[in-house]
Parts: sequence; C-alpha cells; structure tokens
Amino acid sequence: MPQGIRDKVAILGMGCSKFGERWDAGPDDLMVEAYLEAMQDAGIEPTQLDAAWFSTHIDEIGSGKGGTPLSIALRLPNIAVTRVENFCASGSEAFRGAVYAVAAGAADIALAVGVEKLKDTGYGGLPVANPGTLSPQVMPNGSAPGNFAQLASAYRAKHGVSKEDLKRAIAHVSVKSHANGAKNPKAHLRKPITEEQALSAPLIAEPLGLFDCCGVSDGAAAAIVTTPEIARALGKHDLVTVKALQLSVSNGYESQYNGWDGSHFHTARIAAGKAYREAGIERPREQISMMEVHDCFSVTELVTMEDLFISPEGQGWRDVLDGFYDADGGVPCQIDGGLKCFGHPIGASGLRMLYEMYLQLQGRAGERQLANPVFGMTHNLGGAPASNVCSVAIIGQEGA
Amino acid sequence: MPQGIRDKVAILGMGCSKFGERWDAGPDDLMVEAYLEAMQDAGIEPTQLDAAWFSTHIDEIGSGKGGTPLSIALRLPNIAVTRVENFCASGSEAFRGAVYAVAAGAADIALAVGVEKLKDTGYGGLPVANPGTLSPQVMPNGSAPGNFAQLASAYRAKHGVSKEDLKRAIAHVSVKSHANGAKNPKAHLRKPITEEQALSAPLIAEPLGLFDCCGVSDGAAAAIVTTPEIARALGKHDLVTVKALQLSVSNGYESQYNGWDGSHFHTARIAAGKAYREAGIERPREQISMMEVHDCFSVTELVTMEDLFISPEGQGWRDVLDGFYDADGGVPCQIDGGLKCFGHPIGASGLRMLYEMYLQLQGRAGERQLANPVFGMTHNLGGAPASNVCSVAIIGQEGA
Repeated sequence: MPQGIRDKVAILGMGCSKFGERWDAGPDDLMVEAYLEAMQDAGIEPTQLDAAWFSTHIDEIGSGKGGTPLSIALRLPNIAVTRVENFCASGSEAFRGAVYAVAAGAADIALAVGVEKLKDTGYGGLPVANPGTLSPQVMPNGSAPGNFAQLASAYRAKHGVSKEDLKRAIAHVSVKSHANGAKNPKAHLRKPITEEQALSAPLIAEPLGLFDCCGVSDGAAAAIVTTPEIARALGKHDLVTVKALQLSVSNGYESQYNGWDGSHFHTARIAAGKAYREAGIERPREQISMMEVHDCFSVTELVTMEDLFISPEGQGWRDVLDGFYDADGGVPCQIDGGLKCFGHPIGASGLRMLYEMYLQLQGRAGERQLANPVFGMTHNLGGAPASNVCSVAIIGQEGA
Repeated sequence: MPQGIRDKVAILGMGCSKFGERWDAGPDDLMVEAYLEAMQDAGIEPTQLDAAWFSTHIDEIGSGKGGTPLSIALRLPNIAVTRVENFCASGSEAFRGAVYAVAAGAADIALAVGVEKLKDTGYGGLPVANPGTLSPQVMPNGSAPGNFAQLASAYRAKHGVSKEDLKRAIAHVSVKSHANGAKNPKAHLRKPITEEQALSAPLIAEPLGLFDCCGVSDGAAAAIVTTPEIARALGKHDLVTVKALQLSVSNGYESQYNGWDGSHFHTARIAAGKAYREAGIERPREQISMMEVHDCFSVTELVTMEDLFISPEGQGWRDVLDGFYDADGGVPCQIDGGLKCFGHPIGASGLRMLYEMYLQLQGRAGERQLANPVFGMTHNLGGAPASNVCSVAIIGQEGA
C-alpha cells in the first residue's frame, strides 16, 4: 500500500450554503455563497488560489459541464478548474482532487466546490435520468428507494432480525438525524420527529417509509486546502488535517457473481479498511469521534455502520436502538442532520459532510458541538447497493 | 508559484486503440483495447494498480457517468476510479489526476483511461447538445466551425494578413497533418491530401473548408504512471517523466470585457507560461522537440503555435508556410496526424496526444520517428475561443 496522504494537507477554510428549496438562488449564487464563507474563513485572496476542483453530477439541470461554470461564477483568476463527477460521491471527489494537488506540490492552495440545484425540476425526488441520444444505461423502472429497500430484506434474512425490530431501528436512525438537524440553521428540514411518526408514515418501498428517505435539495459547499506549513505561515493554529481519503468502486462482482449477499456494501468495507490503514487507526469504534455517513435511506446508514467496522456485523441495529449513534452516544452520526435533514444536492453532499466534521474539530459547531472530537469520518456513496462508488474520508486534529 | 511536479512521476506504460468508425466495438471494448496495451507495456498486473482516473465527456452517448463504467469494463480490483470531465481537455485531466495521486504519495501506480464513442449517432459532427430538463446553456444556433472560424477574421485584421495568405497557411496545416497521419496505422483518416485539395474544398464556415475541420471518431487511450523509483525497480530505464501539467480556465473575461481581441486564446498563454516555468524551459522554440496541439480546426492550430510562444505573435502563418511545423521542421507538430487524422473522441484525445509524445521519446514511433526528441508538449483545448479550458502538458527524458 502507498504511503498515503496522512497529515500532508490541512484545511484552511470551509463554507456551506443554506440548503433547501433555494428559489432565491441559481447554482452560481449557491457556489458564491459557499465560496465566500470559505475564503473569509481561510483569510486569503482569490489570487492566492492555484487550482480548483468542481463537483456536480446532473450537469444538464444544474450548472453545466466542465470547469467553466465554477470559474465564471467565482471570477477565478484563470487557474485550473477541473470538473469531477462520481455519482453521489462527487463532492468527496472534489475535495480529493484539491488535497492530492497540494500533497503533490502542484498547488500551494487549492479550492474544492460542489453544487447541485435540483429543486428547479418542480417535483420531488431526483430528476428523470436523461437517456440522451443513445444511452442503454437508463432503467426507467428502477427507483432509488426500491434499490436500497432490498438491503433491509437481505439484512433481516442474514442476521435473523425481525421486521419489527429492524423497522424500529431504522426509525430511530431518522429520529436521531431530525433531532440533530433541528439544531442546524443551514439544514433544509429542521423539525424533530417522533419514533411514532417515523413508524406510521406512508411506505415508499418496504420497509422504507417517508421518513426513511432523504430529500432532494439545492446547495453548495466549499473547502480550501493547503500544506500545514503554509497554513501556519498564514497564522492558523490547531490545524485540522487530512488523515485518509479512500475510494472503492464496484467492478461487477456484486451483481454478476454469487459472493455478495445483498445485505451490505462490498466497496464500503474495502474503502474503510484502506482509510483506517492510511490514517493509522486500529480501533475505529473507540478512535473515531464522530461521523457523517451517506444516509440516503435510513437502512443505508444502518448497514454502513457495520461496513465501516464501527458496529460488529449484524449488531448495528442494536447499537442504533441503544443510542450509540445519537449526539450523546459513543460515535455520534449525522450531527448536522445528515442527508435526512440537508437533502442531497449531489455534487455538494460530500463537502457538506466534511464541513460539519471541520466545524466540530474546531469547536465551532454551536449548539451541536461535541466534546473534544479528534477524528471525524465521512462516508459518501454513489450508485446502488449492487453497483456503486464509495468514498471514506477521515480528517482530524493535527498530530493525532 | 508552487514547486510543481517536474520529474516526480514517470510513465510506466501507455496504450491507444485504433481510432475510427469503430462499429465493431462499444466503449468498453475500446477501453479494454487501450488498457491491455498499456498494461502489457507497463508489465504489471491489475492488482498493482492503486487508483484510476476515467475521462469521458458525452456520457449519455458513450459510457455513462461516474467511475463504474471503467471499473466494470476492466474488472479493476475495487480501487478508486474517478471520472473527470472538462470538455475536450478531459483526457488530459485523467492523466493529471493519476499523476497528482502518484506525486502525492496516495498511489504508487495509477491508471488514466479516456474514451468516447461518437459515431453511433449515425451523423457527422458532434452529437446534438442535450438540454436536459432545464439547462439554459444550450445554444441551438452555435456551431463549432462557426465559433472557431472567427479566430481567422480577428487574426487577419490584427496582423494585416491577407485572406489568401491565411487560407494558404491553414491549408498547409492540414496538408502536413494528413502527410503525418498517413503513416500512422492507428489514425482514422490515412490519406495524404494536396494543398490544392485543401484550398478548393467546400467551405464549412469561412475560411474553414472541409479539410480545415477535424472529424468525429471513436477511440480510447490509456496511461499508467508511477514514481521514477518504482519504475526503475520494475526494470524500466531511460524513463519518460512528467515535466509540467498546467490548465487555465476562462472566467468570463474574454466574452464580457474589451481586453480580448478574438485572435488568440487568453487561457493558452497563461497555461503555457506556467508550464514552461514548471518544466524549467526558458526558450520553448529551441527546447521543445515536438508537440501535439488541439487542432480541432486548422486555424486553431495556427494561432495556438503563437499562444504557446513557439512562433512570435503574428508570425505563425509564416512559420507554417516555411515548414517549421512539418515532420522535418524545427518543432514537428501533429506527428501522429493530430485530431485532423485521428478524429476527436473527446475523452480520449488528450491521452492520445501524450501517447505519441511517449512513443517518440522512447524511439518507438516507427515510420514517424523523429531524431532524439527531448521534450514533447501536448495542448488540449475545450470549449470555444471566448470561453474555454486549456491544458498544456510537457513530458520528456528523465533528467532533461
């Protein structure tokens, strides 16, 4: 395994727009909103930026292809702007591009911005997949809830969990996220819900009810990264550094062979294992202070807690019900409200997760602040259980 | 300016599919074709790859979004696969992603693959831009030849060049590329043309005639990169290393202010200046041994020769007519035939250009081989003269 990027890169500043039904803002306004906060936090001028990475997934509805939409919106000084896209992990990819450029010595200071403007379609859920002129890859009968709901039946069967127990556990996942999101002024949905509400909500795809599904939203988030040396030279102290960035991508194994049982994410386990090695973390359940995982659906979050080796296999549902992932639990998860309360502007979500970890590590998370976090992990998933890309990032206190 | 990536990364292997009307192959077949050649050249196994970058632009017609199309086509071992897209510079971006990952220490060995399958639309030219559900960015009356032809009128006006002289110069650009491409078994178009044919061909957009426009094609190209130390440990010698990778992206200046005269590319001059500094090249006209530039249209190539500071401003047309860019000239340009003869499968073109530079630097270019090249430059352009992304890459002999 390569030496990795642990502690080579520090976060100089971050920003995040208000997420929501942003009828008041186009994608360029959202990018500017996140960018200006990040620049103010970093305390630098645009001319100090060497390169930028830009993530957006549904380009034909949001901001368009290529690097120009970001460069024009922010009036960047003719630096490199690279568009990355990797389904719902796109925001994590923008961060990774910027971090690698700094660690490589190619950039002293690099910017990552992710955005998506989804509410303009005027209906709920993701936009209709566009088949273009010739694409054979559009599945008109597929749905995200339908794909992810199947995790639940496979998980129940494999681990002998009753329908009632699992439904109660995933309800608690959403109740927890709503309790957290209610404290976050940038979240889209800010109402606490009760377990009773979650359990009795209309079913979308068994066992996923309305409150088991994250919403669609408009939003943007941004990060500015540099070397620890430059960060200190710019007057920063108590640095937050990047400990690990790993991705794993499906290669057909899950859907084409019999080795995958449908109850977990093959890629998440690979990416998590590599990330812990890169970060030098040996006991994640004890060492990870907090995390933001890709809770597109409550059951995704539940199985992810096991795929990230925080909960023992088959025991995640018990940990959830025990409150282990609550804001006052062992490893608080979705302290900002998660996709559940932020919605999921695809290109922005990975960076939005990192933003909360960064605020927490700096003690700047306000009402949501945890006590003395050391390592924050984000998990970003794109695609469906049977074919996906999975990103795992760990940031933390310098020297930890 | 950051220290840059000069000599930090070596090319371990490259591959390129046959370009053309590849009715026999889907995008996956093309990726496999380029990949297998690159892997054989590198002499490694798939398990030795740490990460991959994948470039494709028109995803809804070619291979689809995200990293999974590459991972599945090549059965990669669940490593990270990142999709980059930056218009016609996408292939250069895939290479850049892989190079930065290696220079950062995040990957020991990284893969870059670019592909596009354009001929399946059944008509000439690029596919119709897809407006999706809401995009305001589609210009139904715009055309690529129309946009680029305007360079010619601005260039003529600025430098006092007659219509006849410029027409003769751009005709020579294409004659030269066809002469080179005729010697290349992987090129799409392999027929030499005469100056008379170029001058008398039907006009597409004044002064661009049929032979002034590159074609559309299917193709893929691949690169495998690592550190010089690992390359040597794997038994390689006489390494080809990366000297510079720079991009510059438009920010609205060209189209919204009066400082740009329409006769050149603002971004190309910025990217080229940075690339020479990163590579330590002070006299490009003498030091650059050869180059592949983005000859989407013959006039683009002509003004690019000036934007890259090879020809003095306003003198590029004379250099062309003097044969300075011919295969036996001072700086041979498009030795492989260029976009003119390869066509332009968007995601692949940047890597296809690097492939020729790499073969030449290794003395493996067959009938096209130049004597003792030291530095090879590629220039990759996406967008239109008034709004674009421009990539400039320099590779060369290790230690040069």
